[in-house]
Amino acid sequence: MTDRPATLQEFRDMLVDLPAASAGVIAAAEARDAQLTKPPGALGRLEELAIWYAGWRGTARPTIEAPQIVIFAGNHGVAARGVSAFPPEVTVQMVANFEAGGAAINQLARAFGASMAVVALDLERPTADFTDAPAMTEAEVLAALQAGWSAVAEDADVFIAGEMGIGNTTSAAALAAALLGGTGADWAGRGTGLDTAGVALKAGVVDAGLAHHADHLADPIEALRRLGGRELAAMTGAILAARMARVPVILDGFIACSAAAVLARAAPGALDHAIAGHLSAEGAHARLLAALDKVPLLDLGLRLGEGSGAATALAVLKAAVACHSGMATFAEAGVSDG
Amino acid sequence: MTDRPATLQEFRDMLVDLPAASAGVIAAAEARDAQLTKPPGALGRLEELAIWYAGWRGTARPTIEAPQIVIFAGNHGVAARGVSAFPPEVTVQMVANFEAGGAAINQLARAFGASMAVVALDLERPTADFTDAPAMTEAEVLAALQAGWSAVAEDADVFIAGEMGIGNTTSAAALAAALLGGTGADWAGRGTGLDTAGVALKAGVVDAGLAHHADHLADPIEALRRLGGRELAAMTGAILAARMARVPVILDGFIACSAAAVLARAAPGALDHAIAGHLSAEGAHARLLAALDKVPLLDLGLRLGEGSGAATALAVLKAAVACHSGMATFAEAGVSDG
Repeated sequence: MTDRPATLQEFRDMLVDLPAASAGVIAAAEARDAQLTKPPGALGRLEELAIWYAGWRGTARPTIEAPQIVIFAGNHGVAARGVSAFPPEVTVQMVANFEAGGAAINQLARAFGASMAVVALDLERPTADFTDAPAMTEAEVLAALQAGWSAVAEDADVFIAGEMGIGNTTSAAALAAALLGGTGADWAGRGTGLDTAGVALKAGVVDAGLAHHADHLADPIEALRRLGGRELAAMTGAILAARMARVPVILDGFIACSAAAVLARAAPGALDHAIAGHLSAEGAHARLLAALDKVPLLDLGLRLGEGSGAATALAVLKAAVACHSGMATFAEAGVSDG
Repeated sequence: MTDRPATLQEFRDMLVDLPAASAGVIAAAEARDAQLTKPPGALGRLEELAIWYAGWRGTARPTIEAPQIVIFAGNHGVAARGVSAFPPEVTVQMVANFEAGGAAINQLARAFGASMAVVALDLERPTADFTDAPAMTEAEVLAALQAGWSAVAEDADVFIAGEMGIGNTTSAAALAAALLGGTGADWAGRGTGLDTAGVALKAGVVDAGLAHHADHLADPIEALRRLGGRELAAMTGAILAARMARVPVILDGFIACSAAAVLARAAPGALDHAIAGHLSAEGAHARLLAALDKVPLLDLGLRLGEGSGAATALAVLKAAVACHSGMATFAEAGVSDG
C-alpha cells in the first residue's frame, strides 16, 4: 500500500494524482456481462455495480471475500450547545456496545460476513466548540486523518466507514455547508431525534460556526479541521486510503458523506471508487448525495449512522458480484440467446 | 400443516378463513424494538419489517434459519403469437441451468443462505393459447395449484416463489387485467426485451384473450385457469400454502405479483403475510403493486424474474431480523436512552 501521509500537505498532494479503475477490466467485465444467461440488462443496477466493482478490483470476474467495516467514534465540544437528543456520555457507552457486539452494526456485519472494528478517537478530549474556535488543531486533524488511513485493512475488498459521536450531525452539517454552500437551515436535520425547535437551534449553531470561520473555509481540509470532528476526519482519511489501494467504498449516511465530500471538493472524481449505500432519513442527505452525484442503492428510512445503511447495501453489492462472477454464459449453459 | 386442498372448491373455501399474525407477539416485538440501543425509529423500515416478521412467526425475537426459494417453470401456448424476444425452448434450457447452478437465482440463493429448488410443470405440454381457449382445464389448474402448495417446505421460515416461462409476462398481463381492470395497453410491457411494436402486439394478444373470456372472469381462480399458466397457478398455490402455515412471503416481480393478486382479489388481506421485494422494471409492476397496496423494498431496475428481486430483498429482511433479535437493549448495554 501507499505510505501513510505524514503531514497535511502530503494528504493534499496525494489528491492531485489518484489511481483510476482499469478501463481494460471494465471492458472485459462488460463483455462477460453480455454473455450471461439473462436478457441484456435484466439485472439492472446489479450489472452496473458488478462492472464498477470489477474495474476497481482489477479483475473481470471478482469475488467479495473480505468486506471491512470500521466505526470511528469521537466527541464534540459543540454537543454542549444542546444540539443532540442524547447526552455526550452515550458515545463512550456505544463504543462499549460495539465492542460487546450489541449494536445494530454488529448484527449487520455478522449477517453479511464483514469484519467489524471500532476506533475510539480521544473520547476523553472532545473537539473544541466550533462556534468560537477551530474544532481541532493541525496536529489533531492530522492524527485523525492518519488513524482513518491506518484502519483500512491491506486485504479489504470492500470498505465501509461508520461513525458514532453525539453532536456529529451538527459538525457534518457545518462541514457540508462550508464545502457545498448554503446555511445552517439547509443542512441541519433531526439527528437522533430533535424536535423542530431543536433543529432551529442546531441551524443557528451551524451558522455561528460558519460565521466565525468564514475567512478560512476555502480549503476543504482546513474546513474539516475547523468544523469537523475526529471521526469525520478519520472517515476522510480512510476513504482516501481505500482509493489509493483501489478498494471500493460504500458510503453510509449524512455524516459519512459529509466526510467524503472533503475529498470530492478537493479533487473531482475522488469518490469514483465509492457508491452511496442508502438515502438516509436525515433531512439533508438527499441534497448531499445530489452534490456528490451519487444515486443511493437503498431507501429504507434509516438514520442511525454506525455504517448501518452501507452495511445493508453491502448485501446488494454482494448480490451483484455473485451474479456477475457465478452465472453461466449462454454457451456454457446451452441456452439460446434470443 | 393444513391438508392440501383436493378440489378447486376447497381452494376457494380456504380463502374465507385465513390465519392471522399474532397481535400479542406484534405488541411484544414493538416493546422489544423500543428498548434496543438506537434512537426510536432510527432503523426505519427495518424495524417495521422485523415486527411484521415476528407477528407471523409467533415469536417476538425470531430468527431466519431456513429461507426457501422455489422456481416454477411452465410453457405457454400464447408464446406462438410472437409475444417474447426469446424462443419457447429457452424455458427447458433455463430449467437445466437452474439445476446446474448457473442462473442468477442460484447465486443469490447461495449468497443469502436460501435453499433453492426448481419445479418444472409439464413443459412438454404448453397451456392452450388463451386467445381462443382456456389456458388450462380444471384438472390442469388444480394440479398446478397443488404442485405449488406441495412445494412449500414444512420448516421454511421465509418463502419466495420465482418463475420461468417464455411468454409468461403476457399471461400475467392478461390475468392482471382480468383481476384489476384495464386493457392490454395498461398491463403489457417489454418482458425480456420487446421493442415498441412487440409491446403493441402483446397488448393486442392480451385484449383478444380478455374479449374471448369476457363472461367468465369474475371468479379469480377461473380467471387464473383461463388466462394464466401452470407456473402462475403454482405460485398462487404456494403463496396460499405459506399463509396457512404462517410463513412470511417475499413477492418478486410482475408475474409473481399477478399470481398473488388472485388471492388478494379472492379475499381482502390474503397477502398480509407477504411483502413486495422490489419494484421491477417491467412497466406495469408499479401499477400492480399499488393495486396490492404494497411498497417495494428495493428499486434496482431488475426485470429478470426467477425470484431474483425477492431473493435480493431477502437480504434486507435478514438485516431487519438480525438487528431486531440480536441487538442489546439500553439496559443490557448500559447506554443512556436520551
